[in-house]
Amino acid sequence: MKVTYSEMIEQFTRVLGLYGIVGEDAALSAKLFADASLEGVYTHGLNRFPKFIASIKNGSVDVTKRAVLSESLGVMERWDGQQGPGNLNAWACMQRAISLAKEHTVGVVALKNTNHWMRPGNYGHLACENDCIGILWTNTVPNMPAWGGTEAKLGNNPLVVSIPSANGPILLDIAMSMFSYGKLEKYKREGVSCPVDAGFDENGNISRDPAAVLKTHEVFPIGYWKGSGLSLVLDLIAATLSGGCTTREVGTFPTETKLSQIFIAIHLGSLSDREEIEAKIQATLTDLQASATRSDSVKVHYPGQGMQQKRKEQMENGILVDEGIWKGVLEA
Amino acid sequence: MKVTYSEMIEQFTRVLGLYGIVGEDAALSAKLFADASLEGVYTHGLNRFPKFIASIKNGSVDVTKRAVLSESLGVMERWDGQQGPGNLNAWACMQRAISLAKEHTVGVVALKNTNHWMRPGNYGHLACENDCIGILWTNTVPNMPAWGGTEAKLGNNPLVVSIPSANGPILLDIAMSMFSYGKLEKYKREGVSCPVDAGFDENGNISRDPAAVLKTHEVFPIGYWKGSGLSLVLDLIAATLSGGCTTREVGTFPTETKLSQIFIAIHLGSLSDREEIEAKIQATLTDLQASATRSDSVKVHYPGQGMQQKRKEQMENGILVDEGIWKGVLEA
Repeated sequence: MKVTYSEMIEQFTRVLGLYGIVGEDAALSAKLFADASLEGVYTHGLNRFPKFIASIKNGSVDVTKRAVLSESLGVMERWDGQQGPGNLNAWACMQRAISLAKEHTVGVVALKNTNHWMRPGNYGHLACENDCIGILWTNTVPNMPAWGGTEAKLGNNPLVVSIPSANGPILLDIAMSMFSYGKLEKYKREGVSCPVDAGFDENGNISRDPAAVLKTHEVFPIGYWKGSGLSLVLDLIAATLSGGCTTREVGTFPTETKLSQIFIAIHLGSLSDREEIEAKIQATLTDLQASATRSDSVKVHYPGQGMQQKRKEQMENGILVDEGIWKGVLEA
Repeated sequence: MKVTYSEMIEQFTRVLGLYGIVGEDAALSAKLFADASLEGVYTHGLNRFPKFIASIKNGSVDVTKRAVLSESLGVMERWDGQQGPGNLNAWACMQRAISLAKEHTVGVVALKNTNHWMRPGNYGHLACENDCIGILWTNTVPNMPAWGGTEAKLGNNPLVVSIPSANGPILLDIAMSMFSYGKLEKYKREGVSCPVDAGFDENGNISRDPAAVLKTHEVFPIGYWKGSGLSLVLDLIAATLSGGCTTREVGTFPTETKLSQIFIAIHLGSLSDREEIEAKIQATLTDLQASATRSDSVKVHYPGQGMQQKRKEQMENGILVDEGIWKGVLEA
């Protein structure tokens, strides 16, 4: 089933209103959810919407609160999300980092006490629309063992890096775990193996069997010990710069809340050779896509490339939706 | 065979003098090489020293040149390495990023036209000694296929993140390839398999056989498609912010030179809650090390933890050296 972009925004806006998010905030939040689905990130668009409503109902998200400035330190600011809606908080902080970057070339906002930011690629887009490189990450609840361990001590701490480019942003959006639990569940439902090693089974053997890894919850960090270390430092930087909770502390709450996030913007428009920069980026992307591959049916893509095509196609033909979830929104 | 730290510095200083690096520069360069070996990063300490001398001889490194400021943009500066010694250039740029951070909380230096920075953990240490978080990376010659491709189009672009901590820095130092060619060669010599999947063999099958992957040069990025994307954005950010060469451009030169690097410092001393930050870090490190493991003989470590112990041990008992390489230094 397909739904138009405008219909999706309209319905999200209506439902958000029922839960106390109204006016411009509702329009923005609805757009952010719809944009995720529009670009094919269904898990963080429509499919996430009911979970967001649930987090309002269970008290994790306080719809009356928004992120506010708590400390200004040169080109870095600390903001307090006050457990308001995570997507609105993240949007405001990315906006602020961009404003700082337009003034000082670089801007950093560290946000504490926020909630799940839904689809972070949206804030990467925002940076690029403002001719900024965006580097942003969040910590999460503990959901991944550190390398060598069997207990979830680390978060999967998604990281987004976005770079403006003439043909739409280069948009990297990666969690520090090789596969999310959602992806493992999907492979299990479909009865297929993971394409690469996913974690340890209950005997401590490396496994691609999604069911076996779901049983142990011993998912692999990307690059094993390397991603384990990367997850740790992302968490510590987010929590220390914001003055907020570490992944360890987040794990002590009944639900995933009071997250810490970092938003870095670097303004390319401040640079004297902006045109040469664009040429440099295009030359690399062209070279990358021209890479030899093992088969004619395989092409090398750069991060974000597919999203541009998906956005265009679904804007024209409607956005693919899960009928049950969409029906739930219509009936809310 | 073991050599004292001071003897190693003395000999490096003497040999550097023969090639035109003298005075404080020689002392610093020698110390940086010795520190790498001291902390157990032998590949980038003594073992790298003869390659550094070779790069002076082949003209990649111009010993008469040093990095100079080329453009100042708020809290970001662009420096031109003028193909001078990579370790001295990197040290100067990290120093400058730290100075900017002490003034504005955040400082960024983008360096172009530089050479291999030898062991980057040294610059991470420098940040921590100045109570700064350090985030730094370099691009490299193309040495890794993009995900889906078979040709080396990406660099392994090492990334360092360092965070000050009471018991010595948390120091993450990771290349974007799962295993370096040096590591693959080592496994091959020892006749062992790689501990995890390392790349594709000539039939396009995933392989842990170091010889098979050395044959194809199709090494895996960390996290497969994820590390492939991360390598790309690190390269593009380094080259665009510095105005220097991309990995693609570096690949057009006869040797690996004219690299682009980024040095970011964030001054924790500027934050009002410096003590709480330390407590937060220690609580996470303690929790991590207390993680359950599959066997009593396995412990979870954090990045940089082992280096502290190695430094202490080798400072007391001498630094383990490859006799042949050390003899070469003595006879130079």
